[in-house]
Amino acid sequence: MPFVKIELTREGVTREQKQRLIKGITDLIEEVLHKDPQLTHIAIQEIELDNWGYAGEQVSVLRERGITANKK
Amino acid sequence: MPFVKIELTREGVTREQKQRLIKGITDLIEEVLHKDPQLTHIAIQEIELDNWGYAGEQVSVLRERGITANKK
Amino acid sequence: MPFVKIELTREGVTREQKQRLIKGITDLIEEVLHKDPQLTHIAIQEIELDNWGYAGEQVSVLRERGITANKK
Amino acid sequence: MPFVKIELTREGVTREQKQRLIKGITDLIEEVLHKDPQLTHIAIQEIELDNWGYAGEQVSVLRERGITANKK
Amino acid sequence: MPFVKIELTREGVTREQKQRLIKGITDLIEEVLHKDPQLTHIAIQEIELDNWGYAGEQVSVLRERGITANKK
Amino acid sequence: MPFVKIELTREGVTREQKQRLIKGITDLIEEVLHKDPQLTHIAIQEIELDNWGYAGEQVSVLRERGITANKK
Repeated sequence: MPFVKIELTREGVTREQKQRLIKGITDLIEEVLHKDPQLTHIAIQEIELDNWGYAGEQVSVLRERGITANKK
Repeated sequence: MPFVKIELTREGVTREQKQRLIKGITDLIEEVLHKDPQLTHIAIQEIELDNWGYAGEQVSVLRERGITANKK
Repeated sequence: MPFVKIELTREGVTREQKQRLIKGITDLIEEVLHKDPQLTHIAIQEIELDNWGYAGEQVSVLRERGITANKK
Repeated sequence: MPFVKIELTREGVTREQKQRLIKGITDLIEEVLHKDPQLTHIAIQEIELDNWGYAGEQVSVLRERGITANKK
Repeated sequence: MPFVKIELTREGVTREQKQRLIKGITDLIEEVLHKDPQLTHIAIQEIELDNWGYAGEQVSVLRERGITANKK
Repeated sequence: MPFVKIELTREGVTREQKQRLIKGITDLIEEVLHKDPQLTHIAIQEIELDNWGYAGEQVSVLRERGITANKK
């Protein structure tokens, strides 16, 4: 029965990356909770940069300033 | 006060089908819970096929293999 | 693949009312969208009255004033 | 740690209005709950008028009848 | 039509703080978007500390180590 | 910026299982999307069995009949 919703900024996530997220999370839930994968649904919601706020700023503004979300 | 969110794959749901869902659910909530319909809001979120995972697979991949969500 | 989330105030919804909502919405989605019911998941989230705001007021305050959500 | 999701109809909300919502809510959460703004994320989800139901009707239909959501 | 969902850790938010969040956000939406407050619903969801993860850790663990979410 | 919400039935998920989900998903997002883990928040929402519907039935009813969500 798990439903997993991933919300993140729309910044060029590829089809292959989405598949890795879907497979990885479904496998993790099966491994940790022993859930039948047929009961696990995952939805990825990509949000425009103007529509995501972090620390009081639009992410589009942060990106214009060169601030990324990447791991250093 | 109910807020109902319907998340489903973007696969050609028509305007008329959306209206039937909205009317049907609002009526059901009024009938079962006696809620004033003026307090019931419903949002339908259509999710791209690459962004929905089921049983560890992207729905876009399942559809390419001919697997549908239709009632048999 | 539909996932339906119903959020409403915690005000004594009975087990039988929840079952009627679950059955009614699943049937409606099958009827309107022809979705296999095995793919429809529904979650009901009951929210404390202090935690729901309507028109700028906590619902707990509205109820103390005798304002209900019932259909007139 | 707060995550705030704003869901509303897609009716021409400007970039500047989104920024005011993001800044205003982040500041409010800092003021009321003393949360570090670096922990507050906000996502705005704009929903097509055909996909939002109010009082059993699609908002697109309400707008065609001249019914708006504006404060009188 | 806005529906606003605030998700945050359950750490003693008072009834009065919830009311300030509800009033503040409803007023902000009226001021910025000119929405009739009768159409704005807000739900606050408090999440147990074991159930919120930040940077790969449960918040309950972070709190045991003395790490708070407070603005410095 | 990712926010991940996991909704599942309340059926005795342990603190340690929650930690494995939080760690596993945060690591996966870092590995696949290269996101700084400080920007990844995860919330787990456990839903009462009466409040989750699957295939038109309450999960509490399915469990009484001996139907589980476990992988065979």
